[in-house]
Amino acid sequence: MVPVMDEAALTAFLAREFPQVADDFVVETVAAHGARIRFRVADRHLRPGGTVSGPSIFALADVAMYLALLAMIGPQALAVTTNCAIDFMRKPAAGCDLIAEARILKLGRVLAVGDVLVFSDGSAAPVARAGLTYSIPPR
Amino acid sequence: MVPVMDEAALTAFLAREFPQVADDFVVETVAAHGARIRFRVADRHLRPGGTVSGPSIFALADVAMYLALLAMIGPQALAVTTNCAIDFMRKPAAGCDLIAEARILKLGRVLAVGDVLVFSDGSAAPVARAGLTYSIPPR
Amino acid sequence: MVPVMDEAALTAFLAREFPQVADDFVVETVAAHGARIRFRVADRHLRPGGTVSGPSIFALADVAMYLALLAMIGPQALAVTTNCAIDFMRKPAAGCDLIAEARILKLGRVLAVGDVLVFSDGSAAPVARAGLTYSIPPR
Amino acid sequence: MVPVMDEAALTAFLAREFPQVADDFVVETVAAHGARIRFRVADRHLRPGGTVSGPSIFALADVAMYLALLAMIGPQALAVTTNCAIDFMRKPAAGCDLIAEARILKLGRVLAVGDVLVFSDGSAAPVARAGLTYSIPPR
Repeated sequence: MVPVMDEAALTAFLAREFPQVADDFVVETVAAHGARIRFRVADRHLRPGGTVSGPSIFALADVAMYLALLAMIGPQALAVTTNCAIDFMRKPAAGCDLIAEARILKLGRVLAVGDVLVFSDGSAAPVARAGLTYSIPPR
Repeated sequence: MVPVMDEAALTAFLAREFPQVADDFVVETVAAHGARIRFRVADRHLRPGGTVSGPSIFALADVAMYLALLAMIGPQALAVTTNCAIDFMRKPAAGCDLIAEARILKLGRVLAVGDVLVFSDGSAAPVARAGLTYSIPPR
Repeated sequence: MVPVMDEAALTAFLAREFPQVADDFVVETVAAHGARIRFRVADRHLRPGGTVSGPSIFALADVAMYLALLAMIGPQALAVTTNCAIDFMRKPAAGCDLIAEARILKLGRVLAVGDVLVFSDGSAAPVARAGLTYSIPPR
Repeated sequence: MVPVMDEAALTAFLAREFPQVADDFVVETVAAHGARIRFRVADRHLRPGGTVSGPSIFALADVAMYLALLAMIGPQALAVTTNCAIDFMRKPAAGCDLIAEARILKLGRVLAVGDVLVFSDGSAAPVARAGLTYSIPPR
């Protein structure tokens, strides 16, 4: 299988369906069963001390898996997360974007399962990892 | 063990340490090893269609466990989530606050483990459940 | 909804479908959306030091949720676990059965979600907790 | 960091500390922050229909992460799993060993976090994936 949506198509989809948050994310690359998403960290995502909040990291992992999934199945806005298990491993570097690398491990008819690694831009040690399951609406 | 912080103390702590989000949450009740937190749902938490976003529900579960923990150990802002496994089970009711009920199942020296049920206010069927682990900084 | 299988029916089902492990488990009580299962701890479940192994505790949580589910939907052997997030919190007491209390939080058409607390028999402090999702085969 | 235990040392450790299950596992390769473990599937691991049981797959993931960890920190039998989130994605192939590939994503002073992919031997599509946290005893 090859992706049916590319970087430009996913970017347009985000802007149209999720205008409140679309500016936070950059679709860097899309490949078969995977996507790399940049999270433009801004002041509103920070906790005192300058670290990115846990919910912001969760949101990034969730969006990265969602976009990797839509790349394969097309613009189905109603795919929903049913489960996420996330490990927070390191404090993100201050003043630095986050990068999420999502891969799809199973793309079934009703469920898709994948995982995501989150890094501070330019660092090799992951900030977080997450396993996610999405429910795919009937077509 | 009994709580060392009550509703007023936790509310003051939130306002002081997390001013960006403190208004979103109401500390309704605190008990030994548990807390009930209200999430005042506003437009900025919604997805198209009027449903509360996944990251907002995650944030609520995370805060509820955090406050239940601080109630027992005191105002240690540096306690951090190390792990969260969350199941999204139902769409939240539209135009409705969310209620989180957190309980602490283990309060160790370095780790605390608990779980959280999230409901639409007035509904008995849970929207989400989460298991969370917090790392407690050395005293 | 009320259970469609009682303790005796679940016990007979286990013996018929899972003869290798049926003797390990006792169906103590079944209720709407919940079950209490005893795990008869034997030498083969122990690790050096006399503690019950993690995979045995996982197996108990998995079986308890499975039986709570079958009690509601009938003897569908092909329901399968799709996800489990388990926290191991305390060492089980030595020379002691384990008790699992499972509850179903969502019983959908294709997915069921629930959680399980595991205790050493007679103790109030949980050994483990797990959240599980089962996939229900089409009828 | 380089491993302080190699394949032979881990194999000897397993045989000495976990004699009940050591024959089930083969330590195929060990590298910095990773290990590849074979699970010799036998009749006692099967469910009716010939598929490997969930608890057996959990046990494999748990052992693989444990051995990858011990390779880095030495033979500390008392490292214990505190958390595991596992997704079961596909039925294992019948009559086939399972292969687990574990990698350590964080090796801290008190906690280690990693993930594991499980495959049927010779297949590229994963049967399961797991994220695990181990607690490391004080030295």
